[in-house]
Amino acid sequence: MTIQLHCFGESGNAYKAALALELSGLDWAPVFVDFFNGATRGADYRRDVNVMGEAPVMVDGDLKITQSGVIQMYVTEKTGKFGGSTPEEAREVMRWMFWDNHKLSSQAGMTRFLMNFLPEDKRPAEVIGFMQGRLKAAYQVLDNHLDGRDWIVGAGLTNADLSCCGYLYYPEPFGFDRAQWPNIDRWLDRLSATPGWKAPYDLMPGSPADRA
Amino acid sequence: MTIQLHCFGESGNAYKAALALELSGLDWAPVFVDFFNGATRGADYRRDVNVMGEAPVMVDGDLKITQSGVIQMYVTEKTGKFGGSTPEEAREVMRWMFWDNHKLSSQAGMTRFLMNFLPEDKRPAEVIGFMQGRLKAAYQVLDNHLDGRDWIVGAGLTNADLSCCGYLYYPEPFGFDRAQWPNIDRWLDRLSATPGWKAPYDLMPGSPADRA
Repeated sequence: MTIQLHCFGESGNAYKAALALELSGLDWAPVFVDFFNGATRGADYRRDVNVMGEAPVMVDGDLKITQSGVIQMYVTEKTGKFGGSTPEEAREVMRWMFWDNHKLSSQAGMTRFLMNFLPEDKRPAEVIGFMQGRLKAAYQVLDNHLDGRDWIVGAGLTNADLSCCGYLYYPEPFGFDRAQWPNIDRWLDRLSATPGWKAPYDLMPGSPADRA
Repeated sequence: MTIQLHCFGESGNAYKAALALELSGLDWAPVFVDFFNGATRGADYRRDVNVMGEAPVMVDGDLKITQSGVIQMYVTEKTGKFGGSTPEEAREVMRWMFWDNHKLSSQAGMTRFLMNFLPEDKRPAEVIGFMQGRLKAAYQVLDNHLDGRDWIVGAGLTNADLSCCGYLYYPEPFGFDRAQWPNIDRWLDRLSATPGWKAPYDLMPGSPADRA
């Protein structure tokens, strides 16, 4: 049975789950969530699909899972891929997934939203500047860690990479300039050279940005 | 051997790990990190202790783990406690831990820091107001979920509860008023009635707030 991922192209959190599904070789298909017309904000969605009011939501038969990190863990459970090759690596993978959810993707996603998807006269300049400062500290942590490493954990691609890259391939500006972070830049090149890799709007079609 | 947790009382993220260790019955002791005098920001700390420049850091013999969520998972691995009682519950526990790291504790911790631990003339009013709006949405999600439930997942205390409560017992104001969220309020009462429960500054002594 084909796994369904309720998602939309603009969501870097959805991208993490979609990319894990795609590169794992599992049979899956995206189901477009019309986020920008309020699909995740209605009472029906919160009651029937996700109390958190968020995408992505993965459906595999009777099983429904939300939170990109948990979907990534499920892909590992089903395929043995991306979870690290030892218990120590498995913990290290989780460590970077939590860090990403706390410090990187959460703040990158919000900043990109404020800078690109709000009307120009509604963009809160002080918030955007503040978040960009916080993000700079996060890029620095990741760039330092990638110094001398090909991948975030161990010798190959893991959920740590698939989580941390969530917002870093998007074309919309949010203050992230790859050229400023040489180790991140090389790591993103390495990741996107993985056979089967696709950019967010190619992996999750149907969004306004995709139709533009 | 006694597990050491490098932590400080003001950190709700450290509190999650400390409370899991305490309630699990494991032999542990807090090691005070002098965060407010820059202990986590130095090059030494980043090189030798934690590249992420954060507390808490748990040391168990040769094993060093950071990120509160991963420390909580380690407590479950060692004791069988707080991880949920079925594979479905285990996923649900992880789901709320990721949600908390992404939407609740991350934003509560930052807002509380800006409102209480920065000099008054350095507090960014627009950022604080914006974050309080985001947090209100998060409290609403949790309050809705707790309607008719004693615990976030299943029939007992899990890491989901220990994660989401991380910042909610602190006395410093950050826009969270328990009385506005009746289901959260009752759940916090239930959690703090657990035998062995302690408030953050009691569990992690030595902080400025503790000495005040």
